[in-house]
Amino acid sequence: MKNASAEEVVLEIKDKSELMVDLAYSSLLYNNKTIAEEVYDLENLIDELYEKLQRDTLEAVAKQELPPNSALTIIKLAKAGEEIADAAQEIADVQLRDVELHPIITMSLKESDEVLTRVFIKNESVFCGKTLGELKLGSETGMTIIAMRHQNRWLYGPNKNTRIDPEDILFAKGPEDAEKHLQELAEGKTQEI
Amino acid sequence: MKNASAEEVVLEIKDKSELMVDLAYSSLLYNNKTIAEEVYDLENLIDELYEKLQRDTLEAVAKQELPPNSALTIIKLAKAGEEIADAAQEIADVQLRDVELHPIITMSLKESDEVLTRVFIKNESVFCGKTLGELKLGSETGMTIIAMRHQNRWLYGPNKNTRIDPEDILFAKGPEDAEKHLQELAEGKTQEI
Repeated sequence: MKNASAEEVVLEIKDKSELMVDLAYSSLLYNNKTIAEEVYDLENLIDELYEKLQRDTLEAVAKQELPPNSALTIIKLAKAGEEIADAAQEIADVQLRDVELHPIITMSLKESDEVLTRVFIKNESVFCGKTLGELKLGSETGMTIIAMRHQNRWLYGPNKNTRIDPEDILFAKGPEDAEKHLQELAEGKTQEI
Repeated sequence: MKNASAEEVVLEIKDKSELMVDLAYSSLLYNNKTIAEEVYDLENLIDELYEKLQRDTLEAVAKQELPPNSALTIIKLAKAGEEIADAAQEIADVQLRDVELHPIITMSLKESDEVLTRVFIKNESVFCGKTLGELKLGSETGMTIIAMRHQNRWLYGPNKNTRIDPEDILFAKGPEDAEKHLQELAEGKTQEI
């Protein structure tokens, strides 16, 4: 195993685990079991990545390709990501098991430092037919898309090449004062990104 | 204990634990022990909040002020936040204990979906003398300030009333394509937010 690939796995665990936390809270906020189930699937993926990383890292140490100190850091960082993923799963578990979430909890989540929101893309939205890379939504509006529904297909952690079409539903997170702007863009009430 | 206050504590644990993860990775990226130590302090605070929340919630159940199902959900969500805080502490621990972090790990962190950055505020920056609320940095640039250093004082998770002054150092996170804009604003190379 090359060092670089271990680092890539650590990074993948980091990014996926943080996405999972956002997805888990979104599943609570929007009472959405599909998103909660995705958190479960991602948790399985993270467990596999973590197991493989540990094995590969220790083999690399045995072959003297990796200093023990570096191996320890890699495993420790991956472990922290794996624990964040576990926590995300527990949050999603509340959505999957609870009969009904207390409305005060949902309200309370809405007051978070980073808000989670859901927008429906109307035909007249300036987003239609454009990719996330073209729109630069993150830097232009402050909102990051964490999941989206396109017809019956779900996409989690979409990338720059993901295109937005009419009737898509976007799940996003970002600062409180950016939520309204995203909503207006999605509804076609404003064309200025 | 009123229900609302339990929800507020859950929300505080959620927000603080997520801030801690960002701070912990920033401490690694910028080899910054002060930030790593703050993660430790916050972890102690979260432990106290979680202990108190458990006690108060169970007392409320005993007094029949809170249904057992709601209490379970509250404790479960708080526990998930507490585990995220633990994971953040383990990441900060790498910074506090490791002699030197492997440069590949630092490079790898820079490739994250959400980048972490550090900017120094020059005299000519449009930020000078303005509060975060006035600047609306999150929605205007996509970057969120997670920590800042003002003279010898550190501020973590600054709020809308926090003012930026010349020579402050901001630690921020946000989408990759927003980093350069923040840097240019901090350096006074552009005045257009």
